[in-house]
Amino acid sequence: MIRNIIIKNRSYRKFDPSVQISKEQIIKWIELARFSASARNMQPLKYAISTGRALNSKIFPNLGWAGYLTDWPGPAENERPVAYVAVLLDRLLASSCYCDDGIAMQSILLGAVEDGFGGCIIGTINKKEVAELFNLPGNLEILWLIALGKPSEKVVLETAGEGDIKYWRDEGLTHHVPKRPLDEIIYKGI
Amino acid sequence: MIRNIIIKNRSYRKFDPSVQISKEQIIKWIELARFSASARNMQPLKYAISTGRALNSKIFPNLGWAGYLTDWPGPAENERPVAYVAVLLDRLLASSCYCDDGIAMQSILLGAVEDGFGGCIIGTINKKEVAELFNLPGNLEILWLIALGKPSEKVVLETAGEGDIKYWRDEGLTHHVPKRPLDEIIYKGI
Repeated sequence: MIRNIIIKNRSYRKFDPSVQISKEQIIKWIELARFSASARNMQPLKYAISTGRALNSKIFPNLGWAGYLTDWPGPAENERPVAYVAVLLDRLLASSCYCDDGIAMQSILLGAVEDGFGGCIIGTINKKEVAELFNLPGNLEILWLIALGKPSEKVVLETAGEGDIKYWRDEGLTHHVPKRPLDEIIYKGI
Repeated sequence: MIRNIIIKNRSYRKFDPSVQISKEQIIKWIELARFSASARNMQPLKYAISTGRALNSKIFPNLGWAGYLTDWPGPAENERPVAYVAVLLDRLLASSCYCDDGIAMQSILLGAVEDGFGGCIIGTINKKEVAELFNLPGNLEILWLIALGKPSEKVVLETAGEGDIKYWRDEGLTHHVPKRPLDEIIYKGI
């Protein structure tokens, strides 16, 4: 059931480094994005994949992790993602991807979760450095990075009270994600 | 399997008007969006629902349909959506939703498809008129409308040749959607 996969698809930021993901596996998830809707069917998104230990370790210092957890600098050496997908806008095809990026990344992550993996969409990126690492031509702009791996942390949903939506970690290091109540997001003014 | 649902989740623009969708049913799909990732977990998206015949018929003339099918003005009276979800950005919470809109709409549509329905994300909207019809306050900005119903058209995926990505209808009125080959969307420059 899609509901179970969506609930299981949390933003995971700690991974089991002993479980690798192959490029072929990731390409199967990207194929799910390929099958997904695209504004004007333009399909301006492209994808660069990193599964190699050397490239991964060069990418890592260019990323920002979990802004609300100010005393956590990101996953430790033995918790880091085993793969990254850079989501790229091909500016030779379009100047905007509209909402294609979210659609595509949701498809990719749902595929990953169904296969027992998980990930996190990262927007805080030193784009210039990462573009060089991936050797990207000037027309391919990095929009997002998806960090991927076998999740090794527990993430739970809870209902936000009083609009407090900052995620937090308890002493057992379970990561809590407060979601606004359904009542609050359905507009009933009509 | 998520792959089957994603492939079945096409942009449907013709529906069986005899099959209604209840508000409760739509709220279950919106709950899937609620469970989905949000940048900084801000959750600035809200949703307005129309399932009533009167409101639906007032919304319809404010929408643009299938830009590439220049000789098709949109679904005929007996093919129109039975419901709409307006996806709204609450500007009191954030000035941008980043990629939340695509993530949320993919979740909503996958839920709808799993339940035997389907829809289409519409971006060509007379927003001023539709905001008045939904009686929206100034802080709720319409980003997209999702048209929903029981699909009554056949939509097939095919591989785009030579970058020709315009969707088209054959004589039997099957709707063809050319997708760029996987090879073309995976960047291999590294």
